Amino acid sequence: MNSVGVVTPQRVAFDAPIALRGGTTLPGFELVYETYGELNAEGSNAVLVCHALSGSHHVAGVYAGQPNSVGWWDNLVGPGKPLDTNRFFVVGVNNLGGCYGSTGPMSINPATGQPYGADFPVVTVEDWVAVQARLADHLGIGCWAAVIGGSLGGMQALEWTLQFPDRIRHALVIASAPKLSAQNIAFNELARQAILSDPDFHGGHYYAHGTVPVRGLRLARMVGHITYLSDDQMAEKFGRELKNGTLSYGYDTDFQIESYLRYQGDKFTTYFDANTYLITTKALDYFDPARDYGGDLQAALARAKASFFVASFTTDWRFAPERSREIVYALMHNGRDVSYAEIDCSAGHDSFLLDDAHYHAVVGAYLDRIET
Amino acid sequence: MNSVGVVTPQRVAFDAPIALRGGTTLPGFELVYETYGELNAEGSNAVLVCHALSGSHHVAGVYAGQPNSVGWWDNLVGPGKPLDTNRFFVVGVNNLGGCYGSTGPMSINPATGQPYGADFPVVTVEDWVAVQARLADHLGIGCWAAVIGGSLGGMQALEWTLQFPDRIRHALVIASAPKLSAQNIAFNELARQAILSDPDFHGGHYYAHGTVPVRGLRLARMVGHITYLSDDQMAEKFGRELKNGTLSYGYDTDFQIESYLRYQGDKFTTYFDANTYLITTKALDYFDPARDYGGDLQAALARAKASFFVASFTTDWRFAPERSREIVYALMHNGRDVSYAEIDCSAGHDSFLLDDAHYHAVVGAYLDRIET
Repeated sequence: MNSVGVVTPQRVAFDAPIALRGGTTLPGFELVYETYGELNAEGSNAVLVCHALSGSHHVAGVYAGQPNSVGWWDNLVGPGKPLDTNRFFVVGVNNLGGCYGSTGPMSINPATGQPYGADFPVVTVEDWVAVQARLADHLGIGCWAAVIGGSLGGMQALEWTLQFPDRIRHALVIASAPKLSAQNIAFNELARQAILSDPDFHGGHYYAHGTVPVRGLRLARMVGHITYLSDDQMAEKFGRELKNGTLSYGYDTDFQIESYLRYQGDKFTTYFDANTYLITTKALDYFDPARDYGGDLQAALARAKASFFVASFTTDWRFAPERSREIVYALMHNGRDVSYAEIDCSAGHDSFLLDDAHYHAVVGAYLDRIET
Repeated sequence: MNSVGVVTPQRVAFDAPIALRGGTTLPGFELVYETYGELNAEGSNAVLVCHALSGSHHVAGVYAGQPNSVGWWDNLVGPGKPLDTNRFFVVGVNNLGGCYGSTGPMSINPATGQPYGADFPVVTVEDWVAVQARLADHLGIGCWAAVIGGSLGGMQALEWTLQFPDRIRHALVIASAPKLSAQNIAFNELARQAILSDPDFHGGHYYAHGTVPVRGLRLARMVGHITYLSDDQMAEKFGRELKNGTLSYGYDTDFQIESYLRYQGDKFTTYFDANTYLITTKALDYFDPARDYGGDLQAALARAKASFFVASFTTDWRFAPERSREIVYALMHNGRDVSYAEIDCSAGHDSFLLDDAHYHAVVGAYLDRIET
């Protein structure tokens, strides 16, 4: 089925301290990553896949003996797929501050011998890209053929072109934005307040208390799912269909959509860390490359040298096409090479993860043009 | 200032039992209401104002010695205002299940001598209208000149035309919908889960525990405020403006929008009851007059005899103009007299509460035509 097959995560430790944007210096850190395909002799065929809020380094393939452990972007990445592992050496990495093995709030703080918890600093998109550059060094990749990501992952691809303009040839920025809107921040704040106000959060030191802020994390995920789907998609998928055929006149599940949200919320709390959720929403809120340029995005993007592929989805109200067009216009005014696709897909923000034929065709066509 | 001036709420007890849609029969109930203007000798100039989620009977005027206690629709209701109390006898009522004095979860359950709490039944828009009809009887109002409401209040105005087609001459249905969408229900479910999962909720019997589910109610209100404002309005009002000029790299307030949401959430918990919030969101979710007609709204509205004024606001994504148009089309196909205004106002769903000149002009023009 064009799968990269069974994959195994790798781990690397970096001993040099890293100064983060927020002012904290970490003495060192570890990253968990996966690779698919082969790096060519020139090191010119490497593609970095950046993950969004709840993603990880496990982009494609499955783990041995775990047939359900399919990577989160497996429909896009593999032999013969749009991001073709027969041509490209593909790298997925769990970001710093994550909860899938890279150094984060669940890791042991060497200064205390206890998990960092709330003491793990807020990290930014800029920090993530600086960290990813160390991984590139480790893997012998001087310049990425491409960096690709959706949503928060797209922000990382864009940041690569600004922080390391000579280390990236192509940026694929999908279902993303040059900065969050007030409404986006409001939804993130709602999710954060759900976690922060959960009595089991204990100021972020819930590991030490043997608790998990399950209620808050569950609500946070419900917020997410509501905003990932379009109104139309939700109507199509759930409508006003009743779960048990009749109204309960109580607070059990009446409508299918309630059942879906509760299920997604509950499931999330079994595998995701609340502190990582907080950090990641802050990274989203803070990203704003134009901030240091008086809000002038064109000026902010002036140092980018890469070629760009930008894509948005018509029903994505979380990162609407208008936001992608802002990036496209700024780049065009800077004389950059930009391809832009506005894809008619009903699935809202989640579209970027789906196997939509038109979407995959345009991404594949762009990637096929990249020289290796 | 065209104010109705100092007003005093009134209270009436109904001793006859009332059978609710959910199957419960209440032995009796009390309603708190206010009136403005004078009922004419024919009883033909009475207008009922129905409140939405967090509204009350206190529609206009102020309470003696409390200059800040202005009614929630004071900009619309008063002498010389669009709903002119020189012509009309205006009635505001706190709905059954409310928390402003009418019988609700905070009232004493005669069967136990304790507050109803979670034992207060879920009520519906149909129940509210049945209850409002008893108030009309009490006040000697055989037929309303008009029933008016926004959002959930508009649903009550619509329901009046269906349940009592001969007791209402005009229905003003503003920023409303013939039923909630899956996305609307999803937001309500998020708010409910925030309350239900608060450890201080105690299954709805928090009065007995001496607690208030402050965290849950606060989050529920934040959900509300995000959906009441339009994306544009939020951008205009808050943008990405920082509260203290710099990023905190922590979870204190960074952006103005965060400060606004926290403030609104905190304030709400000081005056609103969580059980009433739950009941009211269920009334919203359940309203669907077409349910018994196989989803055929035109058939469902066939028994309405009133004339209609329907209005929506271009930036209202919670009750979008499309939803109002569904009502308008169904009524037009039934040959009813319908006026429809789609008002260009940037304030989202909250627009119906604002003093927008164009909006008030069209409402006033419609009301002026009504014979008394």
